[in-house]
Amino acid sequence: MAAVTFDATGFRFGGEDRFFLSGEFHYFRVPKEDWRRRMRLFKEAGGNTLATYVPWLIHEPQEGTILFDDVPYRNLTAWLEMAKEEGLQVVLRPGPYSYSELLNSGMPSWLVDTYDSLMAKNIQGNTFHPDTISYLHPLFLEKVRPFYRAFAETVRPFMAQNGGPVCMLQVDNELGGVHIWRGSLDYNRETMGIGVAGGRYPRFLEKKFGTVDALNDFYHTDFDSFAAVLPVGKADNSDLYSCRRAKDYYDFYCGTLAEFAALLKQWMLEDGLSGPFCHNSANPGMNAMFLETVDAMGDGFLLGSDHYYTLHHGWAQNNPTPRYALKVFHSNELLRLMGMPPTVLEMPGGSPSDTPPILKEDLQACYYTNLAMGMKGMNLYIYTGGPNVPGTGETCDIYDYNALIRADGSENETFAAFRDFGGFTAKNGWMQRASLAANVQLGFEWDATRSAGLDYTGQKFTLSACWDFLQHGLLYGLFCSHHRPRLQPLDRPLDKTVPLLIPTASAMSRQAQQNIIDFVSGGGHAILMGAMPETDLDYRPCTVLKEFLGNPRLTDVVTQALVLDVPEFGSTIYNTNPVSGVAEVPADAQPLAWETRKHTCMGYRMTKGSGSITWLGIQFMAKTFEQIRLLEWLLEQNGAQKLMISSNRNVMTTLWEGDGRKCLFVMNLYASPQKTELILYPGTPREQHLGEITLAPMEVKTRIL
Amino acid sequence: MAAVTFDATGFRFGGEDRFFLSGEFHYFRVPKEDWRRRMRLFKEAGGNTLATYVPWLIHEPQEGTILFDDVPYRNLTAWLEMAKEEGLQVVLRPGPYSYSELLNSGMPSWLVDTYDSLMAKNIQGNTFHPDTISYLHPLFLEKVRPFYRAFAETVRPFMAQNGGPVCMLQVDNELGGVHIWRGSLDYNRETMGIGVAGGRYPRFLEKKFGTVDALNDFYHTDFDSFAAVLPVGKADNSDLYSCRRAKDYYDFYCGTLAEFAALLKQWMLEDGLSGPFCHNSANPGMNAMFLETVDAMGDGFLLGSDHYYTLHHGWAQNNPTPRYALKVFHSNELLRLMGMPPTVLEMPGGSPSDTPPILKEDLQACYYTNLAMGMKGMNLYIYTGGPNVPGTGETCDIYDYNALIRADGSENETFAAFRDFGGFTAKNGWMQRASLAANVQLGFEWDATRSAGLDYTGQKFTLSACWDFLQHGLLYGLFCSHHRPRLQPLDRPLDKTVPLLIPTASAMSRQAQQNIIDFVSGGGHAILMGAMPETDLDYRPCTVLKEFLGNPRLTDVVTQALVLDVPEFGSTIYNTNPVSGVAEVPADAQPLAWETRKHTCMGYRMTKGSGSITWLGIQFMAKTFEQIRLLEWLLEQNGAQKLMISSNRNVMTTLWEGDGRKCLFVMNLYASPQKTELILYPGTPREQHLGEITLAPMEVKTRIL
Repeated sequence: MAAVTFDATGFRFGGEDRFFLSGEFHYFRVPKEDWRRRMRLFKEAGGNTLATYVPWLIHEPQEGTILFDDVPYRNLTAWLEMAKEEGLQVVLRPGPYSYSELLNSGMPSWLVDTYDSLMAKNIQGNTFHPDTISYLHPLFLEKVRPFYRAFAETVRPFMAQNGGPVCMLQVDNELGGVHIWRGSLDYNRETMGIGVAGGRYPRFLEKKFGTVDALNDFYHTDFDSFAAVLPVGKADNSDLYSCRRAKDYYDFYCGTLAEFAALLKQWMLEDGLSGPFCHNSANPGMNAMFLETVDAMGDGFLLGSDHYYTLHHGWAQNNPTPRYALKVFHSNELLRLMGMPPTVLEMPGGSPSDTPPILKEDLQACYYTNLAMGMKGMNLYIYTGGPNVPGTGETCDIYDYNALIRADGSENETFAAFRDFGGFTAKNGWMQRASLAANVQLGFEWDATRSAGLDYTGQKFTLSACWDFLQHGLLYGLFCSHHRPRLQPLDRPLDKTVPLLIPTASAMSRQAQQNIIDFVSGGGHAILMGAMPETDLDYRPCTVLKEFLGNPRLTDVVTQALVLDVPEFGSTIYNTNPVSGVAEVPADAQPLAWETRKHTCMGYRMTKGSGSITWLGIQFMAKTFEQIRLLEWLLEQNGAQKLMISSNRNVMTTLWEGDGRKCLFVMNLYASPQKTELILYPGTPREQHLGEITLAPMEVKTRIL
Repeated sequence: MAAVTFDATGFRFGGEDRFFLSGEFHYFRVPKEDWRRRMRLFKEAGGNTLATYVPWLIHEPQEGTILFDDVPYRNLTAWLEMAKEEGLQVVLRPGPYSYSELLNSGMPSWLVDTYDSLMAKNIQGNTFHPDTISYLHPLFLEKVRPFYRAFAETVRPFMAQNGGPVCMLQVDNELGGVHIWRGSLDYNRETMGIGVAGGRYPRFLEKKFGTVDALNDFYHTDFDSFAAVLPVGKADNSDLYSCRRAKDYYDFYCGTLAEFAALLKQWMLEDGLSGPFCHNSANPGMNAMFLETVDAMGDGFLLGSDHYYTLHHGWAQNNPTPRYALKVFHSNELLRLMGMPPTVLEMPGGSPSDTPPILKEDLQACYYTNLAMGMKGMNLYIYTGGPNVPGTGETCDIYDYNALIRADGSENETFAAFRDFGGFTAKNGWMQRASLAANVQLGFEWDATRSAGLDYTGQKFTLSACWDFLQHGLLYGLFCSHHRPRLQPLDRPLDKTVPLLIPTASAMSRQAQQNIIDFVSGGGHAILMGAMPETDLDYRPCTVLKEFLGNPRLTDVVTQALVLDVPEFGSTIYNTNPVSGVAEVPADAQPLAWETRKHTCMGYRMTKGSGSITWLGIQFMAKTFEQIRLLEWLLEQNGAQKLMISSNRNVMTTLWEGDGRKCLFVMNLYASPQKTELILYPGTPREQHLGEITLAPMEVKTRIL
C-alpha cells in the first residue's frame, strides 16, 4: 500500500498530497458480515483511512487470558486483512484507555476491581474515581505490558513497514482527561515518588531548583530536602507561593504524561512495531499540555486534537458557532506551531446523545469550518457503530452514536454531509501544502495557553484574563476585521516583516520580553495591549520590556472609554476596559490615547530606529464594530495591508493560498440567513471583487480562485 | 384612556383581554421631532405601551439642581402628553438605578464621586465598584428623595388615576444585580447595622433565632449578642456552619431588597402617585430572590423578568436554543406561581453589541418561544434609541442598540419580526386567560431556585445539583416526552389528581416532606428521583419522608446503568447517575430498579391506600431517548395520560388551552431544518392528528385549533 507520511505542511499518501480522511470503525462492534460494505461506502464517500480502538477489556477479559481473533468481535486480524484488501489505511488505538463509552473507560474489570494501589489519588491520597488509573504506577505498567505485547504480535504483519495498512499507532487516549475531568491531577505517592528520595517529583524539583534553599526561597517554605516537599492541590490563587507550588506540580504532571506516552512508544518499538505514533489531545484547551510529550516522542509523532461542538444538552451551543470556529483556529494553530499538520483526531461523526440532535447542516458546517480554519486531516468519531460486546457497554447496548452509518447499517441523513466534504477534500489535495492567508502575528506564550486558572490573582491582569482577551477580544475582533492573524509564540525569534499584536498580561517571560525588544530594535512594529509586564512567569520582578517602554509610572483608571489623539477617532471609543494608565508620558513617546477626562495617558507609541512599539493599557471582549475599527487602524498604522473586506463583519472568511491556487471560505455560523459583499486584497494590484454572497443558516461556501 | 389592570391570569386594557406589548422608548435619546412618527410606527405594528427610564443623572446634573422639561431631552411632560394623544400606555422607570448603558449606571457623578460612605462594601468593608450603591444607606436615601419628589410632581397629572397614560411605575432596576455581578453582596456596616445593637442584621437574626444561644448552637459560634455577629462572605461550602451563616446573610440581603423596593413605593404614594408598581428581575435565575419583595409590595405589584438570549460574544449561544426556551419556561412559571401574569420586562429589541448580530429570524423565534412558554406581556429593550445626552453615555455616543427602529429613525430588518409578532398577539387576546396544557406537576422548593451555590457540599446530593437535575434532566426530558409539566412548589397543599414528579436533594424542608406524605396519603401519586432527604433546608436531621418510605438503609453505588423489574424495560437503562441504593427493600415495597449486578435496589414503589409513592435513587442530565422513555413509563404508571406526541422529540411543542380555543406552538430552536408529525391527546376521544410539519431553522409555527 501507499505509505502515509506527514510533516508540518500536511499529509502525503505515496508521496501525493492528500487530505487525511479517517473514520472510526470498531471491529468489535460492527457485525463482521457488514464490514466490507461499510468500508466501501466509506471509500466511495472520499475516506481513505480507518481508525479503531483495540480495547484492553475486550481482549483480556480475565487477567492473563489475552485473546485475539478467537471470535468475530476480537478478530482484529480479519479486519486488518479486509482493510488492506479495500486499500484503506488504518490507525490503531490500543489504549490502555479507550473510553469509547466502554465499561471502566475500557479498563478490564479485573484490574480496577482488584488493585486499588494503582488508581490515581487526589491530594488527600484517596481514589477519586473507580476507573481512573495512575498512568506510571509500576503495578499498572506491569499489568498493561502483556496486553501491549500481544497486540504487537497481532498487528506486526499489518504494519506499513511490512506492506500492511497500519499507518499510525496511537498511544493511549486523551491523556490527562480522566484526571482533570474527574476533579484532580494524580497525586499517587508511589507513582509520583512524593516523599521518596530520588522519586519522580523530587527529581523534577531538583532539576528545576538545583538546591533546596532555592526552592524554599521560591516557595517561602522550609523543607529540608526535595523528598520532603509536598505539593499543594488546588491553589489559593490569591497566595503567590501557593500558586507557584501548584503551577510547578502541574508542569511536573504534564511531564509524567510525556513519560507515559514515550514508554508506550518504547514498548511498541521493542515489540517490533514502527511508528509513526499519534495522540489526541481531548480538546483545544489541552493541546499545550502536550509540549513535553511532543518533545519526548521525537520525530514521527502526530499530536492531534478532538473538536466536538456538542456532546450533550449541557453544552450551551448546539451547532458550530463563531466561538467554536475560533477554538478550532486556535487549536489548529497550536498544533501547527508544535510542528504538526493540524489534525482533528476526533471529529464528530455523530453524538452519544440523542438530544441535542446532530443535524446534517450543522455537521457539514462543522467539517468545512475546521477546514477553513487550517485542518489538514481528521478522523470521524465515529463513522459507524454496532452492538456492544455484552457486558462491555457503559452507556448503551447498541452503540449507534447517531453516526453517519447507523448501528443497523443504514445511512444516516448526515451521511450526505460527509459525502459532500469527502468529495471536496478528494479534489483539493493541493490544500495540503497551502496555508491560511495572514497579515498579523498574534503573539502569545505557551504557558498562558495551558495554565489558565493556575495564575496568581494578586496581579493586575492575569494570564487567564489575558488569554480570554486574546481569544474573545483580539482573535474574534481580527476575524471581524479586514485582517487575519496567525498565532506566534513569543519564545522564538520573530519575523520583522509582519506587524506583531500582543495581548500582554502582568507576567511575561524574560525571553519573550527580550524577543519583543529585539523585534522592535530590528525594525519590527509591535502593538501591545493590556498590562505592562512587571514580572516573569514565575512572578519574579522582570521589567526589561517596561524599561524599553520608558519605564513609566503606572496608574489605575476606571473609565471604559478611550479618546485617541487621532483625527479619524475624534469621538470616544467605548467598551475598552482599562488595565493601566501612565502618570507621565515618557519623553520620547507620542501619546496616543487618553481616558475621557484627558488626565491619564492610556497609550503611546515609541519609534525605535526603523521599528516601533505601541502600548495601549486596555483590554476588551469583542462587542462593537468600533473596537474592530480601532484594531484595524492600529494595524494599518503599523504596516498591515488590508487582506479582505467583508461588508458584513459577522460573516467570517478565510483564504487559503498555495501553489498558485487559492480557496476562499465564507462562513455563516448563525441560525439565520446572512449576506455579504467581498473584496480580496483591497487597494492592491491583486484587488478582486467577489460581489454579493448569500448564505443560508449554517452554510459555509467555498470558492476556488 | 382605558385602564390597564392585571391579575395572575393576564392583562386587561379597559377590561378587555389584551397582550401587554410595550416598547422602551427613551425621550432623553430619541430626537423630539421624531417622537410621534416612531410612536405611530410602534402602534401600527401592534404595540400598546411605551416604557422609559427617567435617569437621575440626566435630571439632577448638579446636586440640588433638579430639572424637568427645560430642554427637549428632559421634556418628560411633552413626551407623556404625546403618548396620551397617541393612545399609548406608559411605564415609567425612575430608578434611582437605570443602568441603560449610562454613565455610573445612571447615578449622578456628583453622588458617586463625592460620597464614599454610601457605596456598597464587600465583606472586608471596601468599596468594590465605583458606582455600586448601598441601597438603604441613610445618606443615599436622603440624596434620592428630592429627585423622586420632583419626578412625582412632573408625572402626577399623567397618572392613570388622573386619566393619564401612566399605567405602571417601576421601582429601581434589576435590584441586586450591581452587587452580585460585581462580585459581592452588600456588607455596608452602616446600612446593614452590622455590629450595631438593633441594627438591620441583628434584628433579622433575632427574628430568626429568638436567642443568641440558639444562634450559637446553629452557627457553632460563641457570640455574646446579636449585634456581635459577623456575617461570613463567601462560604466554605464544605463547612456546614459557614454555609449556614452565608445562607442566612443571603436571605437577609434579599429582605433588604424588599425593604428598599417598598420604601420607593411608599415615597411615590406619599407624593400622590398611585400604583400599580413593577420591578424587573435581571434574569430568570434571580426571580426567586424577590419572594420577600412580592410580599412587601402587596397588591398591585408586577414582578417581571428579563429574558435576553445574547448580549455579547461572551454568551456561548447566539440565538434562542432549547436551553433558552426552558429557562424562559422556568422563569414564567416562577412568576406565575408568585401570582403574576408572566411578563418579560426586558425582551431583546436589539443588542448593545454589534457582534454577535441580532438577526430577524432569531428574534422572531425568541418572541414566539417566550409566548409558547407562558408569557402574557413584554417590554422590548429597546424599541428605539438615539444620541446620548453628551457626557452621559457609558458605551457609545449614539445609542442605537441595533434596535427595531434605529437611532437614525430607519427601520431595522428585525422590525418585521416584531410586526409579525405584534399582529399575532393583537389577534389573540383570548390567550391572556388561557394556560399551558400540563399533565405533570414538577415539584420544587423555592429555596433551591435561589440558593444554588450556597449549599453544603457535605451532603450527598446538593440543592444545586438537584436544581440542575430539575432543569437539564427532568424539565428538558419532559419537553422531549409525551407529557408536559407545570412547576409546583412543595410548600403548599398539592393537587392530588395530577401525578407529582419531584427531583429530591439530600435536604428538603419539613413542610415539603409533610406535604408529600399528605399528598400520597390522600390518594396522590408521587415519583421521587434523586436522594432520600435526610435533613431539612437548615441541614438539621429531618427524616419524616424517609420514614414514610420505610426508612431503608442507604448505600453507595457507582454504576450508571439501571435494570428495571419491568418486562418492557428488559434491557439496561443507561446514563442514569446513581445517588443512593438501599441495602434492603422495605417489607411493604415493590422493588422497581436495580443496579446492573442486581445486588442493590435502586428504587421501589409503595402503595399507600389509593395513593402511591415511587422512589428512584438516580439523577441524570437529559441525553438519550431511553431516559425519556423511562420518564414516560414512570408517569404513565402513575396515572398520566399522554398529552401530545411529536415523532421528532427534538421539536419542542406546547399547547395553550382556554375559553374553548387552543393554540399549538411547534418550535425548531436549532440552526438546521427539522420536521415532525404531531398527534394531540393520543388515545383519548379528543385525539387529533396534525400530520407532518416542516420547520426552517429558528422557525416557531403556531396553529390555532
